Amino acid sequence: MDRIRRNQRLSAMLQLLSESPNKIFTLSHFCDLFGTAKSTMSEDIDILRDIVQDFDLGEIETMTGAAGGVRYRPTMKKAAAREYITRLAAELSGPERVLPGGFLYNSDILSSPDITRKMGRILATAYYEENPDFVLTMETKGIPVALATAEALGVPLVIARHSSKAYEGSAVNINYVSGSSGQIQTMALARRAVREGGRALIVDDFLKGGGTAEGMVDLMREFNVTVVGMAFVMAADLPDQHRQLEARALMTLSIEKGRGGATAVVKPAEWLLT
Amino acid sequence: MDRIRRNQRLSAMLQLLSESPNKIFTLSHFCDLFGTAKSTMSEDIDILRDIVQDFDLGEIETMTGAAGGVRYRPTMKKAAAREYITRLAAELSGPERVLPGGFLYNSDILSSPDITRKMGRILATAYYEENPDFVLTMETKGIPVALATAEALGVPLVIARHSSKAYEGSAVNINYVSGSSGQIQTMALARRAVREGGRALIVDDFLKGGGTAEGMVDLMREFNVTVVGMAFVMAADLPDQHRQLEARALMTLSIEKGRGGATAVVKPAEWLLT
Repeated sequence: MDRIRRNQRLSAMLQLLSESPNKIFTLSHFCDLFGTAKSTMSEDIDILRDIVQDFDLGEIETMTGAAGGVRYRPTMKKAAAREYITRLAAELSGPERVLPGGFLYNSDILSSPDITRKMGRILATAYYEENPDFVLTMETKGIPVALATAEALGVPLVIARHSSKAYEGSAVNINYVSGSSGQIQTMALARRAVREGGRALIVDDFLKGGGTAEGMVDLMREFNVTVVGMAFVMAADLPDQHRQLEARALMTLSIEKGRGGATAVVKPAEWLLT
Repeated sequence: MDRIRRNQRLSAMLQLLSESPNKIFTLSHFCDLFGTAKSTMSEDIDILRDIVQDFDLGEIETMTGAAGGVRYRPTMKKAAAREYITRLAAELSGPERVLPGGFLYNSDILSSPDITRKMGRILATAYYEENPDFVLTMETKGIPVALATAEALGVPLVIARHSSKAYEGSAVNINYVSGSSGQIQTMALARRAVREGGRALIVDDFLKGGGTAEGMVDLMREFNVTVVGMAFVMAADLPDQHRQLEARALMTLSIEKGRGGATAVVKPAEWLLT
């Protein structure tokens, strides 16, 4: 490769940083890759910091000292998050998405990569300071958002199952009462999936009765894991229970029944509005 | 914002392009965003094309004409894909990952965002020319890789379930015979999830008997959808059946039993080696 000019270096470096979110790269790593001096590299990083700031692409931080280096976090500013979630809530509102039984159809939203990536950025932004070691979700609908959150945080995703599978090996099983149905259900997680003593961020698609969420907390206790937070795409409008769980949702949902049939009222969560 | 310099513009543009893979942006879009002339923007794109080429970050293409513009695809070159999958196959090989019953423990690999993103890039690279409208997977283990593939292709993900759920609305159910267990199972997909007449790429974690894969093809037939390809993370070493299905896997797996117990032999798939 010919001598690399600054504009090439900057673009490539930002791309490499953003392909490994929240990972610390040493300055020497980039100096070696691009054949530049440390002083030049420091200037480059200053320029990049301004770029991601100006275009709301996230944050670039430099750390000094022995564990020093540079890292990129795909954070989203509160104003941008509020605007995005407000638009999404409007899209989910109305009578068209209400299914028989008073459920909201949102599977398309929950598995659209461009949407889950944005939701993952918003949730990760709220939990970087908690330093989770992994994200935990319960199959199935929350997996894409949980993966996107884990990706932004730069940590693995762990998926709890409804039953233990032969192809996951020995597992820890717990029973929990589903808050919405009142029935006893099982949650299983392979022993190998989680290291003892770690920190988990729980991410799931929907918080209603809170039974599944409490089950996940119980499950983590079996692994001696600290739950640093619980985040949901949507929560039913039951504020008291949520406060007890210290859970955070992006949106609240209530299904309202009128003369013309049921309609979904979806609103951005309060913490995004303040 | 002050007047934007080229090196800032290039970094921000590459970041914006790579946040929406395979999406065509018009030149005017970027001209408006950065306040530059079309001729300058064309030069910028030429520079970016070289950067992503030089650092193997994917491909930038320009299209002329009425539907013209510029798009980024996170393709991975064959050599890089081969190197990555060969390393991953080595990591999955050996006796440590063999579970009782002769299963391979790979849940950690399948839900690690940095790994699934790379696998998604490799699979997307193989199917861009087929222009799928969406990626279809069957819950649960293949969801992260399928999501990453859908993201790289710039299309939605659709997740088939083991049974139809009230919160997904009216669904199409089909029965299929699981190739590995020989038992009849159900596969369900919400009517709303798929538009008639589209093109589907099937992505899943494991191809063994082929029953689930055939079930997904049958399911797509019910929606009048064309299956443009089938891609798996791993395939059991049963080449004849796979050829019949025209399926592609990243790795092949066989569990070999020796005196010291069972060991997993995982190899990169042949199409990556040629």
